[in-house]
Amino acid sequence: MSEEKGTLPSKETFSEWYNEILWRAEVMDVRYPVKGVYVWYPHGFAVRKAVYSALRELLDRDHEETLFPLLIPENEFMKEAEHIKGFEEEVYWVTHGGTSELDVPLALRPTSETAIYPMYALWVRSHADLPLRLYQIVNTFRYETKHTRPLIRLREITSFKEAHTVHATWDDAKDQVEDAVALYTEFYRRLCVPVIISKRPDWDKFPGADYTMATDAVMPDGRTLQVGTVHHLGDNFSKTFDISFEDENGEQKPAFQTCYGISERCIAALISVHGDDKGLVLPPEMAPVQVVIVPIIMKKRADEILESAKALEKELKEAGLRVRIDDRPLRPGAKYYHWEMKGVPLRLELGPRDIDNNVVMSANRLGEKASLSRENITEDVRKSLDAFAESLRNRAEETVKEKIRKADTLDEAGKAVEDGVAVVQWCGCESCANEIEKRLNVSILGSEIRSEYISDAEGECIICKKAGKPALVARSY
Amino acid sequence: MSEEKGTLPSKETFSEWYNEILWRAEVMDVRYPVKGVYVWYPHGFAVRKAVYSALRELLDRDHEETLFPLLIPENEFMKEAEHIKGFEEEVYWVTHGGTSELDVPLALRPTSETAIYPMYALWVRSHADLPLRLYQIVNTFRYETKHTRPLIRLREITSFKEAHTVHATWDDAKDQVEDAVALYTEFYRRLCVPVIISKRPDWDKFPGADYTMATDAVMPDGRTLQVGTVHHLGDNFSKTFDISFEDENGEQKPAFQTCYGISERCIAALISVHGDDKGLVLPPEMAPVQVVIVPIIMKKRADEILESAKALEKELKEAGLRVRIDDRPLRPGAKYYHWEMKGVPLRLELGPRDIDNNVVMSANRLGEKASLSRENITEDVRKSLDAFAESLRNRAEETVKEKIRKADTLDEAGKAVEDGVAVVQWCGCESCANEIEKRLNVSILGSEIRSEYISDAEGECIICKKAGKPALVARSY
Repeated sequence: MSEEKGTLPSKETFSEWYNEILWRAEVMDVRYPVKGVYVWYPHGFAVRKAVYSALRELLDRDHEETLFPLLIPENEFMKEAEHIKGFEEEVYWVTHGGTSELDVPLALRPTSETAIYPMYALWVRSHADLPLRLYQIVNTFRYETKHTRPLIRLREITSFKEAHTVHATWDDAKDQVEDAVALYTEFYRRLCVPVIISKRPDWDKFPGADYTMATDAVMPDGRTLQVGTVHHLGDNFSKTFDISFEDENGEQKPAFQTCYGISERCIAALISVHGDDKGLVLPPEMAPVQVVIVPIIMKKRADEILESAKALEKELKEAGLRVRIDDRPLRPGAKYYHWEMKGVPLRLELGPRDIDNNVVMSANRLGEKASLSRENITEDVRKSLDAFAESLRNRAEETVKEKIRKADTLDEAGKAVEDGVAVVQWCGCESCANEIEKRLNVSILGSEIRSEYISDAEGECIICKKAGKPALVARSY
Repeated sequence: MSEEKGTLPSKETFSEWYNEILWRAEVMDVRYPVKGVYVWYPHGFAVRKAVYSALRELLDRDHEETLFPLLIPENEFMKEAEHIKGFEEEVYWVTHGGTSELDVPLALRPTSETAIYPMYALWVRSHADLPLRLYQIVNTFRYETKHTRPLIRLREITSFKEAHTVHATWDDAKDQVEDAVALYTEFYRRLCVPVIISKRPDWDKFPGADYTMATDAVMPDGRTLQVGTVHHLGDNFSKTFDISFEDENGEQKPAFQTCYGISERCIAALISVHGDDKGLVLPPEMAPVQVVIVPIIMKKRADEILESAKALEKELKEAGLRVRIDDRPLRPGAKYYHWEMKGVPLRLELGPRDIDNNVVMSANRLGEKASLSRENITEDVRKSLDAFAESLRNRAEETVKEKIRKADTLDEAGKAVEDGVAVVQWCGCESCANEIEKRLNVSILGSEIRSEYISDAEGECIICKKAGKPALVARSY
């Protein structure tokens, strides 16, 4: 019987741990015969379903879901020069249909601006059509030449959520950027994954954007993972694709746009931030199975125990919980191991003595045990799951806080980024950034940081000593 | 105010009606600049969501959802010779990544046997792994050279549900075929779309299959639309891809397989079978908005009426219904027109006199009106929706029955296929089939028909006069 708490992966063990957990917990199979694309096991897919269902729920409050084609004709794709530059090395091209060559090569969308905006040009006519807020969840493609990694760096991103909005003014679009940042914050709160929001440096923004706000998670090895971006597109694309509207005074005006995306990297973060050496650890909302019932079968009273376990299952299911009863002919220990690996938040054990005492034994995925009264079981299970989510969120926050360090000198910053993220004062200029990046082999993630863990007190740039603001410095995926 | 019942499209009007309704009801936009691929409007996408959610629910009873890559390497794709032959003219090929040529061209899946089965070879080890029943809902691609048509003949099929199962014996796989046929029957029952199941002639089966069962709907112009197929794959693929298992006696055995698919053609059938000249007509389960409330505002009592409408909306929403209140400053007639076009099953009208009388006026999408008591409104609305679904199903069945005619001679069959489907006696041989097909410019859809509308009485082949069985003959999409 596994009694001990699991151990979180460390800087040294993370990479191997990550590769192992993907197949042990049946999240992804990496053996598909094309580099950089992977297969979702049913369990991994069920996690994906729960995660994206939460994301959909948040978006559906004031967005509508839609679907645009995967194939983008070369001429449309090539319209926005800056945008192309950002993607030209990464695009897959379809050149043949059957045995004949296509007249116009077709790009597999790396992202859908150039697929969607020609249609927006047709759809947006008047100020009454604005704001327009649509999103889609689709597969997108990048011909990655760097080392690929499941859920993190992919050639087929199977679950790219991209939202595209249109507004009457630059300020309206700015407000939308803020709304999207708030939505992403709420989303990651539900995943119990702490994230840091910042504004990417100008040279690191989305190709064609006015500016980019980014969401980064901190992985167990201290490297950061970009898990969401929000772009203010200004009127750059709307001018190219001719998206304009008639305002209240009958004047034709170019529209302003934003777009914002989250890929299955959110699942990479979810897995990595919570998982331990026993397997996945999933917040209840994201767990395909929230409660597993393990009947402790004693030969004499086997039927009675199984009956009782089934009654318990029925009761919890009727309360809307995702419950599974494990009545396989295996030792309880083997079952515990199995469901711990799968990340089930709460295990209920039911043996003859528990039935006699009218109780159910519970153990959550962090190893906390309790005896619950059989009578109030539904309410108690709900409370246990809520408390578990809270514990998980707190633990993740504590772990991340330890990985973020204020650094007053390059030396200190160098040490900080060995284990995580350094917060340094930076004047905002590119040459100081280059200096920091080159000397420490890091990236400047961004400034205008939004995080309750990080002070926004200003100081002097660690390079040029001019007035600076806090900036995030880290090695990133 | 629109009082009359809508008129169903006829043989003559259907084609134009279909093109019109797609944009008028905001289902698909056909103006995307690549032939044969289309854009889902939010309303169309919401219908798709409801339809596929019903399909998922049916499958999730004993299948698991998963996801395999879009890109299939040429060498895997080319393994099953018969399968290739069926697809070689229809496959899109990715040949370039960025500016460089790929070592191995990658096919965009036209269907996923050759993507999934190499993984099944790794996953299936022992009889304990069987049966294996997985499905995915994905975009698939066919380089169609025929005339393309939204939802019907596409180059990107955006919503292909494909299930792939593995079994220990040929008979187990046969049982699975029957289960899948039953599942599809139930699915179309929920869409209120009458379908006919039959066994496709041998020369028309899926490339690589032992046999194919097909599901056909009858469109308003009398042509049939294949809206689902179920294939018994025998051990054809398992031998090619080396999917084998150790049986109870420790012997290694080849596995047997089935696969079965439904594409967004199910939505083409849903729209076409029910829709009329006023727009979409949707069964409540498939309707993004099930009930629309139109407050009949009188200036004096405007606030009171709006309050009352909102209270009604709240009550119905809490009962789990998808309700929308339309309080736009438009004439009621304009609102009726709008929501009829969108296919909303039930409209509730609430004016000052209704409030005084404690009633709500209802009109369903087939034009049936009633006065409902405000007190039991939730229950009455539910009953109205159920009755509406039943009416819709009955109407569709009546319409389809009229389109199916028994034909004893080629002449009769020729007349029958002008308006729909002919049922003829056929000996089963290819030369008689050729004769029928050539003479009448039709296809033999299949024999071993399963339909309560069609007698299975045997007779003599209309060509050779030998013993025959009923076969479906029609012009098909």
